[in-house]
Amino acid sequence: MVQVGFVGMGVMGAPMAGHILDAGVPLVVYNRTREKTKDLSQRGAAVAETLAELGNRCGLVFLCVNRTEDVRECLAELTRDAAAGTLFVDHSTISPRAAIEIHEELKAQGFRFVDAPITGGSMGAQVGALTVFCGGEPRVIAEAKPTMAHYSKRIERVGGPGAGQRMKMANQIAVGGALLALCESLAFAEKAGLDLMQARDLLAGGAAGSWAFENYGPKILARDWSPGFSIHNQLKDLGYCEEAAAEVDAAIPGTLLVSRLLETMVAEGHGEWATAALFELLAEKGFDD
Amino acid sequence: MVQVGFVGMGVMGAPMAGHILDAGVPLVVYNRTREKTKDLSQRGAAVAETLAELGNRCGLVFLCVNRTEDVRECLAELTRDAAAGTLFVDHSTISPRAAIEIHEELKAQGFRFVDAPITGGSMGAQVGALTVFCGGEPRVIAEAKPTMAHYSKRIERVGGPGAGQRMKMANQIAVGGALLALCESLAFAEKAGLDLMQARDLLAGGAAGSWAFENYGPKILARDWSPGFSIHNQLKDLGYCEEAAAEVDAAIPGTLLVSRLLETMVAEGHGEWATAALFELLAEKGFDD
Repeated sequence: MVQVGFVGMGVMGAPMAGHILDAGVPLVVYNRTREKTKDLSQRGAAVAETLAELGNRCGLVFLCVNRTEDVRECLAELTRDAAAGTLFVDHSTISPRAAIEIHEELKAQGFRFVDAPITGGSMGAQVGALTVFCGGEPRVIAEAKPTMAHYSKRIERVGGPGAGQRMKMANQIAVGGALLALCESLAFAEKAGLDLMQARDLLAGGAAGSWAFENYGPKILARDWSPGFSIHNQLKDLGYCEEAAAEVDAAIPGTLLVSRLLETMVAEGHGEWATAALFELLAEKGFDD
Repeated sequence: MVQVGFVGMGVMGAPMAGHILDAGVPLVVYNRTREKTKDLSQRGAAVAETLAELGNRCGLVFLCVNRTEDVRECLAELTRDAAAGTLFVDHSTISPRAAIEIHEELKAQGFRFVDAPITGGSMGAQVGALTVFCGGEPRVIAEAKPTMAHYSKRIERVGGPGAGQRMKMANQIAVGGALLALCESLAFAEKAGLDLMQARDLLAGGAAGSWAFENYGPKILARDWSPGFSIHNQLKDLGYCEEAAAEVDAAIPGTLLVSRLLETMVAEGHGEWATAALFELLAEKGFDD
């Protein structure tokens, strides 16, 4: 059986790798900050000293890092001593354009690639119920699928190279809009003197209802801004949305508005807060449109 | 038992009145266009010739009309020959400020009033599963509650005079935002060459999910712009949202954006289309931000 590797022991990657281990699959892991591999090492994972070593030892390598440039840097090292045909599956959310380029570059070097961004959040990673949007060749995706199934409830091919990232952009556009709808509505409710708990409860059960109302509503009531998904990370994703929208000439005025509002929060030093903290900006500080 | 009356046999009012009748409650109805009372008349409702007659015959009167000025005009006629203490319950979505004024004016004339806007849409009215946001005195609301229960799944007092309308505004702010999130996301998906049915299905099941995705998504796939809830009607509500937000100094930048986009559609002659037709504007025609 092919040796599996996993790069990136972050909020998402660590529990995903853990699910692979729990399934009894031998695993080699790597993280830039080695400390973060400790838990998985104690649970039986081998820890590679370098990315090149991991790439050399593994035939199927998953990445879950952050930005486009992180993926590129990791792949440059991973491919250094990797065997021809090694399959790299990238769970990071990066630029769709860059994902297409990476597909082409790796193919030219004799490797294989799937862009496979995930959705479902840190909770989805912990319980192993992520959704994976896969872009690439059907047979290649099928090869990675049994391993991904250890941490996913749904794995779908959505098209060729880059399509996974494009679907993730569509997802993030909707997530950003739902966030604004939630925060703007509850901020109005509070300013209008309504009971916030009653408002969240009543609105969540009707035509205004959303995953955001269900999951972020309670955080807003508790004023709990610990991420979860930080404003910095959402802005990273929305930047890729803007780039992708410009490429296909799509109008995303709501997404641009959400970006502008979140940038205001970063400027005020709140980039590491959870995205639902957008409520604060609208409810307490006001916002000059 | 007090005689019940119902004014306004529109898309919402007609099925609501029908549920009262179906519960075996004697009912007097009125509609400006008399033709629309025909079905209920055949099912046993008495039809009043004028609003003054209905107000004279009934001790508990429900209204479900359109704008603030419609409610005011109806009440002016309804109260002409009405007995002291008559209770008027307004299910229309109108200005919260006007609702407070109506509370005061009717009280000064010896009548009683509840602002009681509804949510749940035409489908909710048909199956008798509306949610009612009530503003007014608890004892007065309690008096109307058994009758409202015939067409509602949930009836809650949310505060004093005008609070029902303020809660409806919070609801419409969230509904507008969810609409934009849905339309912008699917319009991007289409332009990005993704399969629209797969996109709707995948996104609806995750963190982007919403009532709008579930209920309007299929209409977008079918390009079915028959209302439901028309752009004209949503703009009416969003206008009241803007007025209410200005009063309490709430920031609603997303709502203002939705209004602007929907106004563009009205200018293009599509005011009677369903609100989900916002997808068309974003997907096919583009929008210069």
